[in-house]
Amino acid sequence: MRDPGGAFLPAADVGDGRNPRVVALGGGHGLHASLSALRRVTENLTAVVTVADDGGSSGRLRRELGVLPPGDLRMALAALCGDDEWGHTWSEVVQHRFRSEGELHGHAVGNLLIVALWELLGDSVAGLDWVGRLLGAHGRVLPMSSIPLDIMAEVAGVDPDRPDEITTVRGQVACAGTRGQVRSVSLIPPDPPASPQAVKAVAEADWVVFGPGSWFTSVLPHLKVPELAAGLIATPARRVVVLNLSPQRGETEGFAAHTYLEVLVEHAPRLTIDAVLADAASVDDVAALERAADKLGARLVLARVAVDDGSPRHDPARLAAAFADVFRGETGVSR
Amino acid sequence: MRDPGGAFLPAADVGDGRNPRVVALGGGHGLHASLSALRRVTENLTAVVTVADDGGSSGRLRRELGVLPPGDLRMALAALCGDDEWGHTWSEVVQHRFRSEGELHGHAVGNLLIVALWELLGDSVAGLDWVGRLLGAHGRVLPMSSIPLDIMAEVAGVDPDRPDEITTVRGQVACAGTRGQVRSVSLIPPDPPASPQAVKAVAEADWVVFGPGSWFTSVLPHLKVPELAAGLIATPARRVVVLNLSPQRGETEGFAAHTYLEVLVEHAPRLTIDAVLADAASVDDVAALERAADKLGARLVLARVAVDDGSPRHDPARLAAAFADVFRGETGVSR
Repeated sequence: MRDPGGAFLPAADVGDGRNPRVVALGGGHGLHASLSALRRVTENLTAVVTVADDGGSSGRLRRELGVLPPGDLRMALAALCGDDEWGHTWSEVVQHRFRSEGELHGHAVGNLLIVALWELLGDSVAGLDWVGRLLGAHGRVLPMSSIPLDIMAEVAGVDPDRPDEITTVRGQVACAGTRGQVRSVSLIPPDPPASPQAVKAVAEADWVVFGPGSWFTSVLPHLKVPELAAGLIATPARRVVVLNLSPQRGETEGFAAHTYLEVLVEHAPRLTIDAVLADAASVDDVAALERAADKLGARLVLARVAVDDGSPRHDPARLAAAFADVFRGETGVSR
Repeated sequence: MRDPGGAFLPAADVGDGRNPRVVALGGGHGLHASLSALRRVTENLTAVVTVADDGGSSGRLRRELGVLPPGDLRMALAALCGDDEWGHTWSEVVQHRFRSEGELHGHAVGNLLIVALWELLGDSVAGLDWVGRLLGAHGRVLPMSSIPLDIMAEVAGVDPDRPDEITTVRGQVACAGTRGQVRSVSLIPPDPPASPQAVKAVAEADWVVFGPGSWFTSVLPHLKVPELAAGLIATPARRVVVLNLSPQRGETEGFAAHTYLEVLVEHAPRLTIDAVLADAASVDDVAALERAADKLGARLVLARVAVDDGSPRHDPARLAAAFADVFRGETGVSR
């Protein structure tokens, strides 16, 4: 197996105030948003990504070739691409999807490239490092586990006539699209091996970032990988939770801001949190959120982090500024 | 459309004796062999590649996505990859083929990558230049035409009972695999546009290299692209023909060494040749070959250019040494 070389040497100023070592957990568009902001704040950035997707191009690849689902990993790498024409072009290439009436329809080019490197090198982390080097990525992208996983959710009210009945739903696509309300998630297999590099990154981090993202299918699964969960609890790093801007149908329909924190703690009762970052305009009941944060030992940071057009998307520059404030510890609760 | 940048600036010593400007024509394994040798001889190397493949991964891609068949272009790029770990790794990635029971089976990763760049940039030459830059390619790879082509062959004796009957066979796979003997090839459409960059490279070359390779389906098609054929006849460059080491079933079964030259001239009667390079051990009738070379105004260069294991493959180092001799004009006919 070949090491892609010096691209991931620690920066000279590892761990000082200007370049905290940050590990961001998540998957999909939420992780893309946090990474797009965090890359502006630190040069020591590691993404630890869910590997339970079973839909779309990723789902087809894991079924056809028996590999990790690459899509969330690809999207994280694209978020970290270099700022020059080289980085932008290769980022567009890896994000490009074929459109046709045929067999390639819907496949993202970067998924195919990542899988090819996995087949060639026989090592998922080395393959991702090579794609990172291709993109000139500002950080490293790691899978949370070395094997493909499935999400299983306990869902209430799948049948609208029986709102309290709990149904077990299997598969990320099925869980994310359920008509009921997800109560909890677990993984199949139930005791998957963590990526050793991810555990190490968490242990050595200054900050760990949870969210934003699909709460049950992208943010909480990390807490169901035993070694990773233990590492997230044991790390001397501080922990910040970034709340979503709006509830997601199925997964978090009807969630108040504080509900995100409650289900987080239910999935990892021993986890402590140092800061909760929420968009000022997206929180209806600030007092309830503050109480929920207090219960976790966290300070609440309210900031304007959404884009201006009213859509529930984080603005990378605003989110970066908020992260910088959180990491400097300059901002306490503000209303 | 984005230019991939400075990778293709002419070297400082363009056109001097040490770095002749060389254009190699062909496709498939034959072109891979000539490029693997020529890259050792010059830093000013351009491959002009057939775009008529209709089989395998390339055939599926041109049918599904309406693009140029990328396979021969990919193989040429791989032959030019950089000498470091970066170049070798990405070369292995682009040459990697998926193996499965499913829809990706048989697709070469580089074909998918090239097609993605074409779709993204809308320009076949720019897309190839980007892949060349990814590989750190020692030279440039151009399609002979900007549109996908089909080969049509006049074939004698498809029916073994009627050896003199001429049948028209359409498609590169059908032509290369015919049971009869190919007499001539033409292209569909019959008047395809040449790649302007290929015409320019030929006009500015010091040497143009024909072959080795599948004679009718990889070497001669260039002479059926009108602007390219005119450019190959008009160029002040000298022209060298590299003969194959052994006949190919169907295409050139029963060919003597001089037969390659005869069919070449039949496809471009006004073409003059300056040198014919053949493997000393592969020529049965040197006198006949010398007469055929003489008729074209070419000197015959016989050298040991095959590998030692008896298989009909060119040894890159030996072929490079022979090219260097030809380009320096130091070697005349030798027996």
